[in-house]
Amino acid sequence: MSNDKQQPNWLFNRYNTSQGIIRQLTKGMSAQIFVGDNSMLSIARLEPHTQGELHSHPEEQWGFLLEGECVRIQEGKGIHVSMGDFWHTPSNVQHGIRSEEQAAVVLDFFSPPRPEYREVGKGFGIAK
Amino acid sequence: MSNDKQQPNWLFNRYNTSQGIIRQLTKGMSAQIFVGDNSMLSIARLEPHTQGELHSHPEEQWGFLLEGECVRIQEGKGIHVSMGDFWHTPSNVQHGIRSEEQAAVVLDFFSPPRPEYREVGKGFGIAK
Repeated sequence: MSNDKQQPNWLFNRYNTSQGIIRQLTKGMSAQIFVGDNSMLSIARLEPHTQGELHSHPEEQWGFLLEGECVRIQEGKGIHVSMGDFWHTPSNVQHGIRSEEQAAVVLDFFSPPRPEYREVGKGFGIAK
Repeated sequence: MSNDKQQPNWLFNRYNTSQGIIRQLTKGMSAQIFVGDNSMLSIARLEPHTQGELHSHPEEQWGFLLEGECVRIQEGKGIHVSMGDFWHTPSNVQHGIRSEEQAAVVLDFFSPPRPEYREVGKGFGIAK
């Protein structure tokens, strides 16, 4: 569904790559970010052979694989995730993601919103 | 990916219909609910010709269409949603969903978690 004049301002579409706040998370991985009051939604796209840095932040996170395959790293384990997989990352738990032969699209939810992701920019905004 | 002994406890799969807290929201519409600390994830399945009651709640909500088509009602408008569409519902805004000829699967995120959805049961837990 295109984002034309008939669309209400509460409706978005993940194939419209001009919506949201754009961040280049790392080489080969960009995200579109949508900010709510208590939470934040992100659509991250990984090209094949992309390595996301391990990081942590106080905001709770849910990830949901929308397309492709990738490896989710959490608690020091790299787990291959595929169609239909989703995962929960509690506050301050170190995590990361990487792709291998395939590209991937991942939907993430953060609660509360991550302050670093409210602005166009680069990087994962790694917590100190 | 099946939920076998090799799987960590932070990983789920939407095709495993035994995971989560099961609620029958209304005739033709059930949900699997996963509870976090600051947020809650729900996978709702609508059979064709299902009508969800209009309701509201203080928790912010994001919805994301995973499969099929349906009509999202918000601000008094019924908007036909299809592949890739997602939507934002601020606190206390009345909303609802219905399906027509097609079934639909909708991923919802609530922040904070909805207390009514922490338990197996029936209904949307409509705010008074």
